[in-house]
Amino acid sequence: MKSSLHHPTNESVTATHTVGTEAPALHSDTRRIVVHTEPAYTVHIEHGLLATVGHHMRALAVTGHPVIITDTHVGPLYADSLVSSLQAADYEPLVYTLPAGEESKSPEQLLHILNFLADHCITRRDVLIALGGGVVGDITGFAAATYMRGIAYVQIPTSLLAMVDSSVGGKTAVNLPAGKNLWGAFKQPRAVFCDPDVLHTLPREEFIGGCGEVVKYTFLDNPALLGLLTKEPLTPQSSHLTDVIAQCVAAKARIVAADETEQGQRQLLNLGHTLAHGLEKYSHYTMPHGYAVAIGIALMAHLGFTHYGLPAEEYRQLIELLRAHHLPVTTEVPLDYLLEAARHDKKSHGLDVTIIVPTSHGHSERITVPHATLAEQLTASLSNV
Amino acid sequence: MKSSLHHPTNESVTATHTVGTEAPALHSDTRRIVVHTEPAYTVHIEHGLLATVGHHMRALAVTGHPVIITDTHVGPLYADSLVSSLQAADYEPLVYTLPAGEESKSPEQLLHILNFLADHCITRRDVLIALGGGVVGDITGFAAATYMRGIAYVQIPTSLLAMVDSSVGGKTAVNLPAGKNLWGAFKQPRAVFCDPDVLHTLPREEFIGGCGEVVKYTFLDNPALLGLLTKEPLTPQSSHLTDVIAQCVAAKARIVAADETEQGQRQLLNLGHTLAHGLEKYSHYTMPHGYAVAIGIALMAHLGFTHYGLPAEEYRQLIELLRAHHLPVTTEVPLDYLLEAARHDKKSHGLDVTIIVPTSHGHSERITVPHATLAEQLTASLSNV
Repeated sequence: MKSSLHHPTNESVTATHTVGTEAPALHSDTRRIVVHTEPAYTVHIEHGLLATVGHHMRALAVTGHPVIITDTHVGPLYADSLVSSLQAADYEPLVYTLPAGEESKSPEQLLHILNFLADHCITRRDVLIALGGGVVGDITGFAAATYMRGIAYVQIPTSLLAMVDSSVGGKTAVNLPAGKNLWGAFKQPRAVFCDPDVLHTLPREEFIGGCGEVVKYTFLDNPALLGLLTKEPLTPQSSHLTDVIAQCVAAKARIVAADETEQGQRQLLNLGHTLAHGLEKYSHYTMPHGYAVAIGIALMAHLGFTHYGLPAEEYRQLIELLRAHHLPVTTEVPLDYLLEAARHDKKSHGLDVTIIVPTSHGHSERITVPHATLAEQLTASLSNV
Repeated sequence: MKSSLHHPTNESVTATHTVGTEAPALHSDTRRIVVHTEPAYTVHIEHGLLATVGHHMRALAVTGHPVIITDTHVGPLYADSLVSSLQAADYEPLVYTLPAGEESKSPEQLLHILNFLADHCITRRDVLIALGGGVVGDITGFAAATYMRGIAYVQIPTSLLAMVDSSVGGKTAVNLPAGKNLWGAFKQPRAVFCDPDVLHTLPREEFIGGCGEVVKYTFLDNPALLGLLTKEPLTPQSSHLTDVIAQCVAAKARIVAADETEQGQRQLLNLGHTLAHGLEKYSHYTMPHGYAVAIGIALMAHLGFTHYGLPAEEYRQLIELLRAHHLPVTTEVPLDYLLEAARHDKKSHGLDVTIIVPTSHGHSERITVPHATLAEQLTASLSNV
């Protein structure tokens, strides 16, 4: 797989194709990507995987009682299937259901989970299973990182965003009143199981939001993905859905493994995010994250086009790709507001901010500029749109 | 320093004596013990250290804003001194004060701390300072382990128990309604500063409780300590106070470094604790931890004497040593109650339990027995008292 990152990566991801061919087969059913964190784990991507999760966990020698953490949207749809899958492998699972929504990513809900675990005498030898989107994955991971100072957990992401973004990187957190993700831990799962079939029931807006993160990778690490998505925009019915998810997971795993402590290259993953935070905040967090990222990518791509050498044709292709996925590429939110939000971002250091700017297919650059310069350049850039 | 542990240790602790002599000088003023965890850190023990903490932190290249977490007992006594020490080294500290007492080791108080940090825009580049006993140290460590997924922290233990026990090992936690220390993380401090002068204001009962943990080490790893304490029981005025604290810290550091994951040798630190949990629970946690540990040690020593070859003379010496420190060595709590509590201990594994039994000066053994056997042996042992 071609990598066009600026800095050399240690090739730390292995894609194992179990369909009996050496070359990546786009329409094959199964992908396994080993994420070489400490400890390493495997992301499994396969249609119908939910029905065999129990057997996969036995193969991984996961013992003890599984506790499924899910929410009121996903639980009614898939908890029964997962319970059956676990029972078929001789597990005796418990189920805990959170209210669906970002408001559940709170200290209060976290504490409810911990008390549930303690009240049911869950020990360090048991295992949590996150069945849901990013909120469920983040809160479950943080519970697993801290209950009895750490127990094992498994992720079963049920949104496109969670599959391509949250399943790699080990970041877990809940929100505090003062801000998002302020309280958390790094915790690697024992395994991640992505079943693309569950995306059929994902609300359309959420699927589109996930595409915002998918498109991001076309300008980070994987120019081939651009061709694939341009030819056929992603839908839950896409024949290349498994393959696209796998390529995004592999790209994120490569970038994370090359920079576990988020000192440099890993910041590339923030493409589109510097201004996205302001967009989400302005909407009081009613704008889906992926939509905000899409607008953020579009603005940064225009900056790349006007100031950092992104060819006009590649800029146009990127915007078309976002539009083809029904993603927004412009905003009415005042630029001043977005810049002020960026100033309070975790990536802001005093007078400077590090932005990620697309410069060619499969390629973005980290650029650290004074806030004032960013304001000037963006104003000039947008006056030309 | 002689080590008489059963299993060979990698000699991972260095005692640096800064008084210009190579040999350990019992009455010297300063001890520095390097704890070789990942990352390594130093425990400083020195009379009057509180006044120079700021300079030591500068020497360690600790930057950012320090946030002192203390409680309503310790804060009024020492927070001002610490603030002055930090200001003298050009820090701008904040102070947050918890209600004193074990009830503060709660999720609710933890959340108050986290919101305080977020509301004051504390970042990953700042540092928490735990100024207090075990409760303050445990809750501050857990806050540091998780605020923004981890920031630095420094410990300034102000109780004897916290100096000899909590300052090494990296265990942080708060209590859940279902049990103690059920929610936490492993987090190593940047440094630990023990100023024995602060023990002058420690309530007598708390000092005595700390002696329970000190005596424990005489039968774990350090037979020389037995002679030292027998000659002159420890008081806040003892000339050998610094040295005794240093010997306990060094012993714990050796044991922890030899077994970071608590699979084997580290369990020796539970000497006296298997039955202590039941004693504390029976008293509704009004019995000080060190008192319960002392009774637990006495009971285990008697078991060692009747069943596992502890010489009568050494048994007698241990009991005398506990008594000389005004610690209890017997209990009216029914043995059945203690055994039932031990059955629910984290060290209990189904039908078996691992107990720690003194077998000679500076030497205890880990013995895994069925609960039924422990009950029989203890009953037989105590009927001979």
